[in-house]
Amino acid sequence: MEPGTARIAVDLLGGDDAPAVVVDGALRAVRADPDLHLLLVGPSEVADALIAALDPAQRSRITVRPVRAAVGMADHPSAARAESTVRAAVTAIREGTADAMVSAGSTGATVTAAALSLGRWPEVRRPALVASLPAVAGPVVLLDVGGSLEPRPATLVRHAVLGAAYAAVAHAVAAPRVGLLSVGVEAGKGDRVRRAADPVLASEPLPCEARYVGLVEGYDVSVGARADVVVTDGFTGNVLLKAIEGAYEMAGGPPAGGGAPRAAALLGVAGTVVVCHGSAGADDVASGIALAAHLWRRRVTDAVAALLSGSAPADHDRTTDEVATP
Amino acid sequence: MEPGTARIAVDLLGGDDAPAVVVDGALRAVRADPDLHLLLVGPSEVADALIAALDPAQRSRITVRPVRAAVGMADHPSAARAESTVRAAVTAIREGTADAMVSAGSTGATVTAAALSLGRWPEVRRPALVASLPAVAGPVVLLDVGGSLEPRPATLVRHAVLGAAYAAVAHAVAAPRVGLLSVGVEAGKGDRVRRAADPVLASEPLPCEARYVGLVEGYDVSVGARADVVVTDGFTGNVLLKAIEGAYEMAGGPPAGGGAPRAAALLGVAGTVVVCHGSAGADDVASGIALAAHLWRRRVTDAVAALLSGSAPADHDRTTDEVATP
Repeated sequence: MEPGTARIAVDLLGGDDAPAVVVDGALRAVRADPDLHLLLVGPSEVADALIAALDPAQRSRITVRPVRAAVGMADHPSAARAESTVRAAVTAIREGTADAMVSAGSTGATVTAAALSLGRWPEVRRPALVASLPAVAGPVVLLDVGGSLEPRPATLVRHAVLGAAYAAVAHAVAAPRVGLLSVGVEAGKGDRVRRAADPVLASEPLPCEARYVGLVEGYDVSVGARADVVVTDGFTGNVLLKAIEGAYEMAGGPPAGGGAPRAAALLGVAGTVVVCHGSAGADDVASGIALAAHLWRRRVTDAVAALLSGSAPADHDRTTDEVATP
Repeated sequence: MEPGTARIAVDLLGGDDAPAVVVDGALRAVRADPDLHLLLVGPSEVADALIAALDPAQRSRITVRPVRAAVGMADHPSAARAESTVRAAVTAIREGTADAMVSAGSTGATVTAAALSLGRWPEVRRPALVASLPAVAGPVVLLDVGGSLEPRPATLVRHAVLGAAYAAVAHAVAAPRVGLLSVGVEAGKGDRVRRAADPVLASEPLPCEARYVGLVEGYDVSVGARADVVVTDGFTGNVLLKAIEGAYEMAGGPPAGGGAPRAAALLGVAGTVVVCHGSAGADDVASGIALAAHLWRRRVTDAVAALLSGSAPADHDRTTDEVATP
């Protein structure tokens, strides 16, 4: 774990099993990481129950932001109530009260709230969700896994740039290999969108000395070895990730290196945002909070944004060191 | 194993590791199934080597169809040589010399050869590849896994009809549950194509008392339980199947019930055609041959075609019984 305080806003009402599993996940996270501060966003009674379960030293690292609207919305569907907590959690980043936020609520609502409140990066039409899968030779960065669903060649090219920068900054991969997911590795394989994107990617400059390795296949997501970054559309990435997760469940559990991630980073908005799986369990929420803290401590969002705008910081490690003196 | 002779044409030159693994797979298949007859399509010397490894009783169940073009094409790329064997294998079905054919060569070449030589079913624009995955509550029929790559609402609706009929005939599933693969189960989830197909599927009459259960997710392919048939486009299905296969490799092997299939049935052409994975091993080729024999013995292709044209045979089991008297 990198050093440095990380203040994470947690959406207590996001997710199929909220608030119970979110509270449980927040408890686990705050106990596991002594430099973690949580800003709990949601009804006071839920937050109070969480705080009561902690010892005094841990309690001092918890702040509550009651979402007033939730009281008056008691009769509203849970999705409507959760959206107000998502917006409040994103607002906490904008105001500087939180360094990052985590929600297991609707991905669409989180992406929209983050884009509206924090602003999008100039060259990103739709923010992308990035998941990192443990594979045989280090992590495989898969994007998009649900941020934008319509496949377009330009979006795939943008994902290649984002993914290369993310692999270099978040996982310290030197000269990341970037592949385009298709139905075969020979040039020309794939649907119209992939056939259009492939030659563009071959000539597109990629940050961090990344290089495009051409088409890759489904194995290359789960097994890895051929690419450090696998680029696809959000529809395909999302169903793929869930199919891999299901396969590990069928096989009796994830491999020793870890299973399919149930939290993803949002790239393309000016802030550190992590989206957990809607059906997240307490461990998933805790790992989402840990991911948000990791991304913040490495200043991944800022570093990736800087790489994209062409004004890359000379040394990513310095940004990490700065965290120790907030 | 169902009873009845099955005469399977095998493309000796199809696949990344042909002819070695195809020969090995054919040997395994002919030894495992005493009612299996093989028509080996390819260079005589390759076929002769296979025959030499068999005992006399097994040899009598092997016929060779030397592909003359292969001699003159010795300098041509292997893909060109293999395409002539694919065409010869398909021709054997049309001529009545074989009941079914198996190739591990290029999927596109096999689909094209089969559609041109055997003809397509009237209502099928592009034939679909159907894979059956072992799951917790019986097989999950996934289609398309690479027959047609462009997603169109009408194609997805056609796949639902094909898949329902296939599940009923090939796997004896009563009243199959058909789901549309998307990024969430709530109505409205998905890209434009899924959102367009979902309401059409809800009102589309499906054969075999199948019913549409709405949107399903990636887990529902690998784990099953929510649907017997999962409908998607060939691009998504292909990358999904390979990702599941890779996940089982990562997890140390497939679950007890079996892993991801490496052979798929082609639906939409007037003949029984099985496509094996390009990187098929000998076991995969043997299981592809076994799948072709199973499909023929149950007369799956004819029964599905009849269901589609609305003139379903009253009793599928009768068609199976007829196999014993060829």
